[in-house]
Amino acid sequence: MNSAIISIGNEILLGKTLNTNLQYLATQMAGLGLAVDYAVTIKDELSVIRATLDYCWSRYDIVISTGGLGPTADDITKDAIVSFFGGDLVFREEIWQEVTDRFKARGLDVPRINRNQALVPTGFVALNNAQGTAPGLFYSDGSRSFFALPGVPLEMEHLFERHLRGLLKERYGAQSVIQRNIHTHGISESALAELLADFEIPAGVNLAWLPQTGRVDLRLYGQDEALIGQTLESMAARVQKHVWGYDGDSPVTKLGELLQARGWLISCAESCTGGLVQKMLTDQAGSSAYFSGGLVSYSNAQKVALLGVSTDTLERYGAVSAETAGEMVYGLTMLCKTEVAVSITGIAGPEGGSDAKPVGLVYFGFAIPGKTWVCKQIFSGTRASIRQKAADYALISLIKELTELVP
Amino acid sequence: MNSAIISIGNEILLGKTLNTNLQYLATQMAGLGLAVDYAVTIKDELSVIRATLDYCWSRYDIVISTGGLGPTADDITKDAIVSFFGGDLVFREEIWQEVTDRFKARGLDVPRINRNQALVPTGFVALNNAQGTAPGLFYSDGSRSFFALPGVPLEMEHLFERHLRGLLKERYGAQSVIQRNIHTHGISESALAELLADFEIPAGVNLAWLPQTGRVDLRLYGQDEALIGQTLESMAARVQKHVWGYDGDSPVTKLGELLQARGWLISCAESCTGGLVQKMLTDQAGSSAYFSGGLVSYSNAQKVALLGVSTDTLERYGAVSAETAGEMVYGLTMLCKTEVAVSITGIAGPEGGSDAKPVGLVYFGFAIPGKTWVCKQIFSGTRASIRQKAADYALISLIKELTELVP
Repeated sequence: MNSAIISIGNEILLGKTLNTNLQYLATQMAGLGLAVDYAVTIKDELSVIRATLDYCWSRYDIVISTGGLGPTADDITKDAIVSFFGGDLVFREEIWQEVTDRFKARGLDVPRINRNQALVPTGFVALNNAQGTAPGLFYSDGSRSFFALPGVPLEMEHLFERHLRGLLKERYGAQSVIQRNIHTHGISESALAELLADFEIPAGVNLAWLPQTGRVDLRLYGQDEALIGQTLESMAARVQKHVWGYDGDSPVTKLGELLQARGWLISCAESCTGGLVQKMLTDQAGSSAYFSGGLVSYSNAQKVALLGVSTDTLERYGAVSAETAGEMVYGLTMLCKTEVAVSITGIAGPEGGSDAKPVGLVYFGFAIPGKTWVCKQIFSGTRASIRQKAADYALISLIKELTELVP
Repeated sequence: MNSAIISIGNEILLGKTLNTNLQYLATQMAGLGLAVDYAVTIKDELSVIRATLDYCWSRYDIVISTGGLGPTADDITKDAIVSFFGGDLVFREEIWQEVTDRFKARGLDVPRINRNQALVPTGFVALNNAQGTAPGLFYSDGSRSFFALPGVPLEMEHLFERHLRGLLKERYGAQSVIQRNIHTHGISESALAELLADFEIPAGVNLAWLPQTGRVDLRLYGQDEALIGQTLESMAARVQKHVWGYDGDSPVTKLGELLQARGWLISCAESCTGGLVQKMLTDQAGSSAYFSGGLVSYSNAQKVALLGVSTDTLERYGAVSAETAGEMVYGLTMLCKTEVAVSITGIAGPEGGSDAKPVGLVYFGFAIPGKTWVCKQIFSGTRASIRQKAADYALISLIKELTELVP
C-alpha cells in the first residue's frame, strides 16, 4: 500500500506558510502503517492540480489533497477534480441546508457564496465538516482512495479524525509502525557508522540516521516490536558509552528524571550560553521540581559581583579558562546551595577568538555531591549552534555522570 | 523562469521533521524574484530520486535538492545524480584535504567514511561547505541549473547564502523584490485592519499581514522602492503608537541600539521566562556592549537568596504579584548596578493557575534612570507562547520608553 499527499497552496511555495498539514498527515499515516511515500506542493492553478492528480492517481493507492476547497474564486480544487475524474459538480441540498442552519444558529445570514460549498463532484462522497463550511470529499474505485480536504489545519485535522482514520483502517487494515530511538552524543555520524559497520540489522527492521546539531540519533523501525527491541538492545550495547537516552527522551527531560529520582536541585551559571540552558530547563512545565534558578554572568564585572570570581583569576587566566569555570561553579554552589551545579564560559563568536582561544572554545564547571570537575570542549559552527552544542554538552555530561552514579 | 525544490528524506514523510528547509528556500527564492513553482518530498531511494530528477529537470529551469549528501549508506543522492546525469563519482583530493584539515584543527582523526564526501559527480562543481563535511553540488547545461544541498538546515542555509544567491543572481538576473516592514505590538490584527480600513494602497504596492506570536508585522512589497517608502511612511503615521520598529529590527536589536546610543547596560531577573529574555539578548553577537548579566530566580527560595525579596512579601502577595516584581527589580538594580533593569514573574502554565491568578498572568518590574514602574499583563496561549509574549513585552516596553525619552 503506498500513499501520496498533495498540498495545494501558493503561500507554502512563497515561504509564507510552513507546511504543518503535511507533518500532521504524515504522522497520522505513519501511525496507521500507511507511511507517506510522496508529498508534493503545488500552485492553485487548474492545469497544475489536474496534472498532479493524474500523476499521483496512476501511481499511489491512497491520495490525499489539502487546500483549495473554500468558496472564493481562487479555490479551484473541485474544478480540477471534475476535470480529471470526469462528471459534474452537483448541488446537494442537504449540505446547503446544514451550512445555512449553522449560520442561523449563530444569528447570521449565510453569504450566498457559500452555496459553492454544497457542490459535490459526481460519484464523490461528501465528508461532513463540523469545523467549517467546506465538506471533505472522498472517491474510491474499489482499491484506490482519493480524499480532498480543506487547507485550514483545524478543519483538515477534524476531517482526518472523524472520517479518514476509520475509512483507512477499514479499507487497508492499517497496522501501526513501531519506532524506537537511540540517542547518542560526543561521536560524529561517520565515527558511529564505523562502529556499526559490521552490525547486522535483521530483515524487517529498518535503520535511519538522524543527525541533530552536535549529536546523532539512531532510529529502528518496522512492524515486529520484539525484534526491534532486541536489535535496539544489541545496537545500543555496541555504542554504549555514547548513548545518553532512548525514544522520547530529550536532554532536559532525561536530566530532569535523574534529578527528581534523587530529589536533587540544579542551578546554572552561564556566560557564553547567556541563559540558554536555563531557558531549555524551564521550557519544560514542572521543571521547578528540579531547577531552582541561577545566574547569567555575561560580563567579567558580573562574574565578580554575582559569583565572587576573583579579579586576579580573570586577569591571569582570562574569563574563558578552566580556572574561571571552576570559580564560577564554586561561587554558584555557595550562592544557590543546590546539589548539582554547572558553569559555562566560552567564546560563542563570531568575533572574539584568537589562536590560543578560538571561537567555539568552551569551559564547563560541574559539581555533584562528592565530585567537582572542569572540562574543555571546542565546538564548530555558528554562534547559535556553538551555544546549542555547549548547552547540550552540559546537560548530557550530567546525564552520563548521574546515570553511572549508584543512587 | 521557473523552479522546483526536491526534499529528500524519509523523516519528513514520516512526520518526524517539519520541512523548514522548504520554507527557507521558498522565502529566499521569492525574495530573488524566482518564486518556487513546485516542491516535492521523496524517500531516499535511488529509483525514486532518479525519477524525480528526471521529472523536474525536464520541466524546470532551476532545480534544488536538499538531503542525502551525508557519508553513510542511506545517503544516496550522489548515486542518483550519476545515475540520472551520467558520468562517475570522481575523488577530489582537495576536498578530502580540506575535510582532513578541519578534523585535525580540532585534534581529531578523520573517519575514513568521510572520503565519500570528496566524491563529486563528473561535470559538477563542488560548493565549499564551511559548516560541515558535505560540499554542495552544482551543474548547469547553460540555461538550466541543478543544485544539490545537504539537508542539515545550518549547512543548507550556509551554502545558499555563500554560493546559490550569487550564482542565481548572476545567471537569472534575479531582480530583488523590495520589501519594507512595519513592526507593531499591543494591537490585534483585526483592530489594526480597522485602523487601516480606508487606507489606500497605491497600485504596484502589495500589503501582507504577518501575525507573529503576540504582535503583527505589516509588509509592503513591490518593485518601486520610492513608492513603497512613501506608502510605508504614511501607513506608519496612521498606526504610530503601536509601531516599535521597521524592516530588519528585532526587539533585541532595536533595544540594543537604543541602549548603546546612551552607553547604558541592562540586567534581567527572570522567573517565569526562566532565562529566555537573556538568551534572546545574547543570541546577538556583540550584546556584551549593552547586556551585562542577571538572574534566573525561578524558585521562591532563589528570589530571596539571590535578590533579597522578602519572605513576608512572598507570603502576603505571592511570587506572582506587583509587589514581588517590584522587589525583584529593586534587588536586581542593587546587585548588578545597571542603568536599565527588568524583572518578570508570572504563571506560564499549563498548571499553576487559579481564578484570582490565571495562567498567562505576568508582572513586570522596570527601572531606567529616573523612573521605575511595575505593570501587569495577561497573555493567552501555550506555555511556550506565553513565555515568548512576556519576553517580547518586556523588550518592547523598554523600546517604547527609551524611544520617547529625550536623550
